[in-house]
Amino acid sequence: MGIKKATRLPVILFPASETGVSRHADAIFFMSMLNSRDPYFITGAQKRGAPLVKQFKLETLPMAYLLVEPGGAVGRVGKADLIPRTKPELAVAYALTAQYLGMRFVYLEAGSGAAIPVPTNMVRAVRRATRATLIVGGGIKTPREAVERVKAGADVIVTGTIVEHVKNRAAEIHEMVKAVKLGRGA
Amino acid sequence: MGIKKATRLPVILFPASETGVSRHADAIFFMSMLNSRDPYFITGAQKRGAPLVKQFKLETLPMAYLLVEPGGAVGRVGKADLIPRTKPELAVAYALTAQYLGMRFVYLEAGSGAAIPVPTNMVRAVRRATRATLIVGGGIKTPREAVERVKAGADVIVTGTIVEHVKNRAAEIHEMVKAVKLGRGA
Repeated sequence: MGIKKATRLPVILFPASETGVSRHADAIFFMSMLNSRDPYFITGAQKRGAPLVKQFKLETLPMAYLLVEPGGAVGRVGKADLIPRTKPELAVAYALTAQYLGMRFVYLEAGSGAAIPVPTNMVRAVRRATRATLIVGGGIKTPREAVERVKAGADVIVTGTIVEHVKNRAAEIHEMVKAVKLGRGA
Repeated sequence: MGIKKATRLPVILFPASETGVSRHADAIFFMSMLNSRDPYFITGAQKRGAPLVKQFKLETLPMAYLLVEPGGAVGRVGKADLIPRTKPELAVAYALTAQYLGMRFVYLEAGSGAAIPVPTNMVRAVRRATRATLIVGGGIKTPREAVERVKAGADVIVTGTIVEHVKNRAAEIHEMVKAVKLGRGA
């Protein structure tokens, strides 16, 4: 609610579980961790949250959340059967599954604060095989790492830790955004 | 392939696993048993079959396959966490999940040869809550049972056992089709 007051931009929820469904938003990433070993993270939390999503009349953005090595805390909590860094074809198989099930977004996630981000060749392989909007996050700490993934086909780069930890925050963010825009040819 | 030769109608696959993906078809129900306790039936078989679906250029029809009590053999094999007959709201929650994940078809399945079909009030509740194309099957043995479910909002009725077991096959099928058409007001 505070965020809605502070901005005119649409507010999109990125829920960690069914308790993340709020009426004070415009839309919600309706996410499924396709490569979890626990059905709760694939359809269980979703079926608990869905009636609230309907009640609050949120716009739904169907998203596959795919955990790639090293996976970090979210990979452990979500009991992910992590996609090995050396298996871009497995990421492609999951991304195709997402597309064929009707999802419009694919998020390749290496885990928050990961030592290494999702490999660029995996980003490229998924980009070539599917038409989903492609989000890449986890372990992207430098403008260069971001721009490489944009050039490989990522539509969106997610980086958070950098904002929390760097000293010269504004300058670093500016540099990251500039690099991504250049990578896109914008 | 034999079926393709015998008819001009489109052939749509209804696969039991990833081995059911064939190049000799026009389309495939890309199914997920949302209420399985085993991820294999939710996304595991799908991620194995997806690359073949792409290779064979099959049209994909995204479908949620929801197992309702008694569930029959497919419920047991698929390790379904069966939707109780007395919980239409749970069927609705799963159907909304399907819709929000991007699926266009919802199949309420009581199990092949079930003693009792999916309750009509459950069909009605799902129909009211979602816009998916609604398929109902399992245990529908009489024209009356079929027509009640059509009136409750089913778009498609699946019945197979009746075709295999009744004596006067042609007459029985004719009567079933006539009843469903009447139920629809066609």
